[in-house]
Amino acid sequence: MRKRDLLTPIGITLGFIMIMLAIVSADGTEGAASFFDIASIFIVIGGLIASLLINFKMDQIKLTNKVLKEAFRQNDQRLPELIELFVRLSERARREGLLSLEDELDHIDDPFIRKGILLSVDGIEPEVIQDIMNAEITALEERHYRGREIIEKSGEYAPAWGMIGTLVGLVLMLSSLQDPASLGPNMAVALLTTLYGTVLANLVFIPMANKLENKTEEEIFVKQIIIEGVIGIQSGQNPRILEEKLSAFLSNEMKAKQAAEEQTAFSGEKANEA
Amino acid sequence: MRKRDLLTPIGITLGFIMIMLAIVSADGTEGAASFFDIASIFIVIGGLIASLLINFKMDQIKLTNKVLKEAFRQNDQRLPELIELFVRLSERARREGLLSLEDELDHIDDPFIRKGILLSVDGIEPEVIQDIMNAEITALEERHYRGREIIEKSGEYAPAWGMIGTLVGLVLMLSSLQDPASLGPNMAVALLTTLYGTVLANLVFIPMANKLENKTEEEIFVKQIIIEGVIGIQSGQNPRILEEKLSAFLSNEMKAKQAAEEQTAFSGEKANEA
Amino acid sequence: MRKRDLLTPIGITLGFIMIMLAIVSADGTEGAASFFDIASIFIVIGGLIASLLINFKMDQIKLTNKVLKEAFRQNDQRLPELIELFVRLSERARREGLLSLEDELDHIDDPFIRKGILLSVDGIEPEVIQDIMNAEITALEERHYRGREIIEKSGEYAPAWGMIGTLVGLVLMLSSLQDPASLGPNMAVALLTTLYGTVLANLVFIPMANKLENKTEEEIFVKQIIIEGVIGIQSGQNPRILEEKLSAFLSNEMKAKQAAEEQTAFSGEKANEA
Amino acid sequence: MRKRDLLTPIGITLGFIMIMLAIVSADGTEGAASFFDIASIFIVIGGLIASLLINFKMDQIKLTNKVLKEAFRQNDQRLPELIELFVRLSERARREGLLSLEDELDHIDDPFIRKGILLSVDGIEPEVIQDIMNAEITALEERHYRGREIIEKSGEYAPAWGMIGTLVGLVLMLSSLQDPASLGPNMAVALLTTLYGTVLANLVFIPMANKLENKTEEEIFVKQIIIEGVIGIQSGQNPRILEEKLSAFLSNEMKAKQAAEEQTAFSGEKANEA
Amino acid sequence: MRKRDLLTPIGITLGFIMIMLAIVSADGTEGAASFFDIASIFIVIGGLIASLLINFKMDQIKLTNKVLKEAFRQNDQRLPELIELFVRLSERARREGLLSLEDELDHIDDPFIRKGILLSVDGIEPEVIQDIMNAEITALEERHYRGREIIEKSGEYAPAWGMIGTLVGLVLMLSSLQDPASLGPNMAVALLTTLYGTVLANLVFIPMANKLENKTEEEIFVKQIIIEGVIGIQSGQNPRILEEKLSAFLSNEMKAKQAAEEQTAFSGEKANEA
Repeated sequence: MRKRDLLTPIGITLGFIMIMLAIVSADGTEGAASFFDIASIFIVIGGLIASLLINFKMDQIKLTNKVLKEAFRQNDQRLPELIELFVRLSERARREGLLSLEDELDHIDDPFIRKGILLSVDGIEPEVIQDIMNAEITALEERHYRGREIIEKSGEYAPAWGMIGTLVGLVLMLSSLQDPASLGPNMAVALLTTLYGTVLANLVFIPMANKLENKTEEEIFVKQIIIEGVIGIQSGQNPRILEEKLSAFLSNEMKAKQAAEEQTAFSGEKANEA
Repeated sequence: MRKRDLLTPIGITLGFIMIMLAIVSADGTEGAASFFDIASIFIVIGGLIASLLINFKMDQIKLTNKVLKEAFRQNDQRLPELIELFVRLSERARREGLLSLEDELDHIDDPFIRKGILLSVDGIEPEVIQDIMNAEITALEERHYRGREIIEKSGEYAPAWGMIGTLVGLVLMLSSLQDPASLGPNMAVALLTTLYGTVLANLVFIPMANKLENKTEEEIFVKQIIIEGVIGIQSGQNPRILEEKLSAFLSNEMKAKQAAEEQTAFSGEKANEA
Repeated sequence: MRKRDLLTPIGITLGFIMIMLAIVSADGTEGAASFFDIASIFIVIGGLIASLLINFKMDQIKLTNKVLKEAFRQNDQRLPELIELFVRLSERARREGLLSLEDELDHIDDPFIRKGILLSVDGIEPEVIQDIMNAEITALEERHYRGREIIEKSGEYAPAWGMIGTLVGLVLMLSSLQDPASLGPNMAVALLTTLYGTVLANLVFIPMANKLENKTEEEIFVKQIIIEGVIGIQSGQNPRILEEKLSAFLSNEMKAKQAAEEQTAFSGEKANEA
Repeated sequence: MRKRDLLTPIGITLGFIMIMLAIVSADGTEGAASFFDIASIFIVIGGLIASLLINFKMDQIKLTNKVLKEAFRQNDQRLPELIELFVRLSERARREGLLSLEDELDHIDDPFIRKGILLSVDGIEPEVIQDIMNAEITALEERHYRGREIIEKSGEYAPAWGMIGTLVGLVLMLSSLQDPASLGPNMAVALLTTLYGTVLANLVFIPMANKLENKTEEEIFVKQIIIEGVIGIQSGQNPRILEEKLSAFLSNEMKAKQAAEEQTAFSGEKANEA
Repeated sequence: MRKRDLLTPIGITLGFIMIMLAIVSADGTEGAASFFDIASIFIVIGGLIASLLINFKMDQIKLTNKVLKEAFRQNDQRLPELIELFVRLSERARREGLLSLEDELDHIDDPFIRKGILLSVDGIEPEVIQDIMNAEITALEERHYRGREIIEKSGEYAPAWGMIGTLVGLVLMLSSLQDPASLGPNMAVALLTTLYGTVLANLVFIPMANKLENKTEEEIFVKQIIIEGVIGIQSGQNPRILEEKLSAFLSNEMKAKQAAEEQTAFSGEKANEA
């Protein structure tokens, strides 16, 4: 989590340093002043906010803040440990019955896993459990999407308002050409809004929306493995097959260790069967 | 509802204020005059209407007005109350039979819920009820889409006509360069249509089409929960499981209270079972 | 039908009037002359035709004309009457048997409904009927798509050839700058092809392709209701439920009357049941 | 087939004639010389090839040639005759048994139909036949896609390299403004690459890729009808129903004749039933 | 593998040679100097890295390297040999039982085939095997996608940062027009970043991302054939039908030989049956 917190501000800072470097290397520090124009900032940010106000409902605008925060909280579920947990639960359930899992609930923090185990222990049918847990995933996806959507749309409106600002600047400049000497500086100011819009979109909004999307996909991926695990436990599936199934989702490195253990398990088991 | 009514005009007003601010801050109030050109307005709005007339049938053009209004009517169904309603209905149905729900119809305003209950009471099979209610959702989706489509297409045609206007202006300007002094102002006028088209698209049409789409999705989401609820009632599902199922769609905050109650309910029930 | 015939030419005429107005208001009538350049027309239209010849087979090019005409023929099936028809047929089929529907065939003009009834009367199984009728919808969709595709692609090639024409004009102008005075007019001519391409795309091809698509969707929508109706009749579904099912596809206004009747029907029937 | 061979070169020739006409009409024949620049051709074509080499594997690059040729071979299967064939086969299979179809194999050229009949005669189950034949369609689709993809990507890289060439030209021109008189011609040369890239994309690559796609879709469409026919024959479906099913895929004109025959067939059969 | 290693560097080298040729042919070798500007390189590469840091998590950034390498390892599975293998395994399994396949495991290198055979030998049900193997494909697809995504996004951010660099350059140039003579060279420098961004995107990132995607699709295609084969073996499918099924995925040439053999096999078998 802290890692991502760092990457985002590092990236934004790096982007602005690069722009600064380019300015200063060409023109010295006084060049930087011409890149700050309060009216240009107003039209891009204000226009962006105006479009967002029309685009979204108050509920959704309020949601953003919360989803942003929630999305930036690292999903610290490590897959190999998750699989281990389910294999252990499945073994206990087979030995001592599903009800025995109630004792395990105290050691499980994740509310989604807790809910699945609770429903299993309660003897609710697998299809119903799957329905309920899938509904929760759908709702999570929907909620995250609604929060992310504002960032995404900002990435579209910012360059548009940049262009509007530049058009306004050009019209102003062209309609009153009293002083040809002011042409250059006026044109420079006109271009500033396009620059602002493009930087906002490509350094802030688009990358952030993408990170939020990746984050949501990852979270859903983990939750689907959890559903597989809960269903496997409740239907009394063989713990070894359950492990095989769940670990198919792991990448090859993660699987390396597991494969080793598994291989031995295989031989062992087969020896028993023989 | 009123809230959205407010957000949309606030947004549009804010957008225009921002543009005004940019103009006035650069050039004083007299600059604003050069941003108003009746011929430019005509070519953008008139051309836009021309494209829409070719793009749509009269039926659909008529539909827009109605759907716009319908879509701006706030969907005031609060999810937690909706779930509460279904749990209550389901309990009564289990105690007193499905027919007893007829008395409840008087207290239900939503025609979609009424229809579902009515069909249940009438003893129609669950699959048929689901078919009928889904058909209604499909039809609603289709109708809203048809109304929204005009706004969406306007967001595409407006910048195109802005560009056409600018091209017309440029050709006019370039083909008769009698007076080099008029070059600037003529070019300014030529750019105005692009400005109009871009503002119309990004401040009015695109955000409004997006809000309408969000609104439709939300309405469909609620209607799908209603179908789940009606089917659950008719098939005599356990009220507690029904509640669990429906509240899976809630966000975590909304669930906070519910979870609390539920937890106690769980213990209570389990105590009873024991 | 007549209505649409009118809307399309009205739209195209309106578009050109708007462009004319913009020209005349700025420059008087003599300005209009500079907007007509035979070589520019040749390169845009000729190039567009060249791309279409490569893009499509002769069969498909021939198809366009026919589909265009077919698509502009109004689909005059009114939904409420369609539903009424199916309710009536379904009642008769239940009273007098499916074979009795043969007499009704004379009063039905629509070949798609006729085919469905014919297949029902012939005692062919519902799944086979559904297969055959769906295949017909698929084929219609495919055919309309193939015809519409040429219009759609024209909307993409026209601006591309406009740009090619402008590039040709610019290269010509820049490579022989003998006379600086001719720069303006030459540039004006170069821009004309972009103007032509943009107008063709946004005033003619894109809106027409969209209207054709809407038209096809509407036709398919009606045909799907017809399939529902035919299957309902053949499987001897209760006429009231069939009506309920089919009228779920209607918009709320259309349903207004129906609902009224239905409500009374409900009470009546329930009274009987009681 | 020959027809398409003609359309493609006719289209390309027409496109170049149009461009030539525009050049000559403006500037006489000497103008044409300024449109040929060997370095510009090199950067667009060479750059395009460079991007394709990185984008594709040698296998796929080799495939293109073959698929291009295969795709330009006209699919000469006429649908009405295809349906007739299947009705005939189906009648014989019902009269004399599936094995009798072995004699028919000599009269069938199409390897896909042959394979289907062969599998039927061999007594393999319908689902397996369907699996095998669908796998073949999937493989064909995949192969054609891989061949077409190179043309498609060329349509994307060509304008990109045109832009790169123009940027190179502009930088060269601007960084050494010794002679203001050379500004125009140098700019003209810089624009040439954009012109080349745009013409290549819109006159050659995009239309050809689209034609290849249409061709593949058509071929798959025919193959799916063949699968329907083979399955119908093997499952001993009534030849009349099979005809009905298959001819649902025909357009209305093609169906005209068929419908006439069919109508009589209907009456005849019903007379028999009576 | 080595082949692709060659194609990628050849392509990139060729692209730069083309650009060099265009520069040198116009301006001699001294022109090349104006195409190298350290500040421009900094803003494009640095900005690109900044956007990527915000867009991705550290895990994913680390993954890229590995997936890039893995993706560049040639998938050396030749389809005809793969099919031959499965036919042989299937024959042995039918003759000597599934357990006999354990001996074959030593001769099979591919871990995915090994896993399938191992699961079969272990007597796990076909649906479970399919689930497990499909999960592995899904995970592979996901992993490759995550690695490829960074390359893809680089292809989007590079031109955006090129544009940002150009805007910065233009603003700098326009806001300090002390020396009109420096206008040209300054503008040239401003355009360099756009050139860098476009070349990076179209010569490096986009083609590489596409090749990675093709590679992943190919690998999945092979893995799906393997699943078909494993399931066929376990369910004791006839080896000839299995061959027919699997070879339906081959292209026509690959099938040529096979078809010949098969034809003889057909006759032989039918002779036996007779």
